[in-house]
Amino acid sequence: MGIHINLKMKKVPRWKEAEFEEIEYEPTSIKEILIEMKNICELIVDLAYSAILFNSKEIAEEVRYLEVRMDKLNYQIRINAMLAARTKEDAEKIAGVLQIAEAAETISNAAGDMVQLLSYKLTHPILPNLIKESGEVIKKMSIGENSSAIGKSIGELKISSETGVRILAIRRKDGWIYGPRGDVKLRRGDVIICIGPEEGIENFRRLLKGEIEVLE
Amino acid sequence: MGIHINLKMKKVPRWKEAEFEEIEYEPTSIKEILIEMKNICELIVDLAYSAILFNSKEIAEEVRYLEVRMDKLNYQIRINAMLAARTKEDAEKIAGVLQIAEAAETISNAAGDMVQLLSYKLTHPILPNLIKESGEVIKKMSIGENSSAIGKSIGELKISSETGVRILAIRRKDGWIYGPRGDVKLRRGDVIICIGPEEGIENFRRLLKGEIEVLE
Repeated sequence: MGIHINLKMKKVPRWKEAEFEEIEYEPTSIKEILIEMKNICELIVDLAYSAILFNSKEIAEEVRYLEVRMDKLNYQIRINAMLAARTKEDAEKIAGVLQIAEAAETISNAAGDMVQLLSYKLTHPILPNLIKESGEVIKKMSIGENSSAIGKSIGELKISSETGVRILAIRRKDGWIYGPRGDVKLRRGDVIICIGPEEGIENFRRLLKGEIEVLE
Repeated sequence: MGIHINLKMKKVPRWKEAEFEEIEYEPTSIKEILIEMKNICELIVDLAYSAILFNSKEIAEEVRYLEVRMDKLNYQIRINAMLAARTKEDAEKIAGVLQIAEAAETISNAAGDMVQLLSYKLTHPILPNLIKESGEVIKKMSIGENSSAIGKSIGELKISSETGVRILAIRRKDGWIYGPRGDVKLRRGDVIICIGPEEGIENFRRLLKGEIEVLE
């Protein structure tokens, strides 16, 4: 199951539906903050490279969102850490946690540095030919109003086995589902960031746009 | 198709086989170095967190290997960059490339900082309960002498669809295959780093050890 994060820090769940098992929360414990930091770290590196490789300001924007979110989380974890330490053993453990948090922020800042290149007035793409080598592409796609994928789970759609495409994250209203598992159902309005071979991505895009009923 | 990298920088292919399409090379161009840096970046963040989560010095070691490799690549890319720039436009482009390389090294250093925690004399795991939340585990497993998986491709074995397990990297002799695609065949001696739900990993482990013939 993916982990839901509400970017705008609202208390009220905004997309909660009874049948939907996802947990939505504002991270409050050190553990929860660390989990979100880990998810951001893994996602932001993928996205930063994608932004650069595809010269995509759109994906660079997502990187910046995540970078800001990471800053907030690092602040929050420091506060929580100071409040949590009672004994010397606690403090030692928590010092380790803060070191991890620091490293996570360093990673997200470095990802932010990468995409900053895209805001320079470079007219040429920086790495125009890299993608051919990697064979994979990353795309941000939204689900069409009439897509047959709406309401179906990722597993049910056989996205991975039919297309080789892997969904990195789903942006749903103000939040994210990082690395969604097979039981996550797609919804109207979802924005999907996925990686895979070019033909597979195109196939998946057609499903999302309602051009085909099932993956071929 | 995954990208093969020879860690020990040998010129002679050591695991080349006629039927095996993988390209093995020593990166010589800026493009090739960048691709390897990108692969390391994505892998090292996953591995650093895994090392921490599972208190695994074994995986921490892989992180350190990759960190050292990244240092070498960053040195190499600077040399190549200086030799490559002929015009002002070249130089601008290459300055961008060096910024990406710098950020990549920062990321790998941060990953190295994370796992350094494991070399302290901490007797308690740092993040003992995080894994329960994420639901996934990362494991490093070697393929058994009698495994029926030897010589079969990842796609053929249906690893992803049967177990939900994704192979992050295969360590083969002195090199790595990062993010192997479905057509990569497993070989005797392979060390496989994979992520997935606990039961799926256990299922895959049994296949690799030769305890079962096919994934159930």
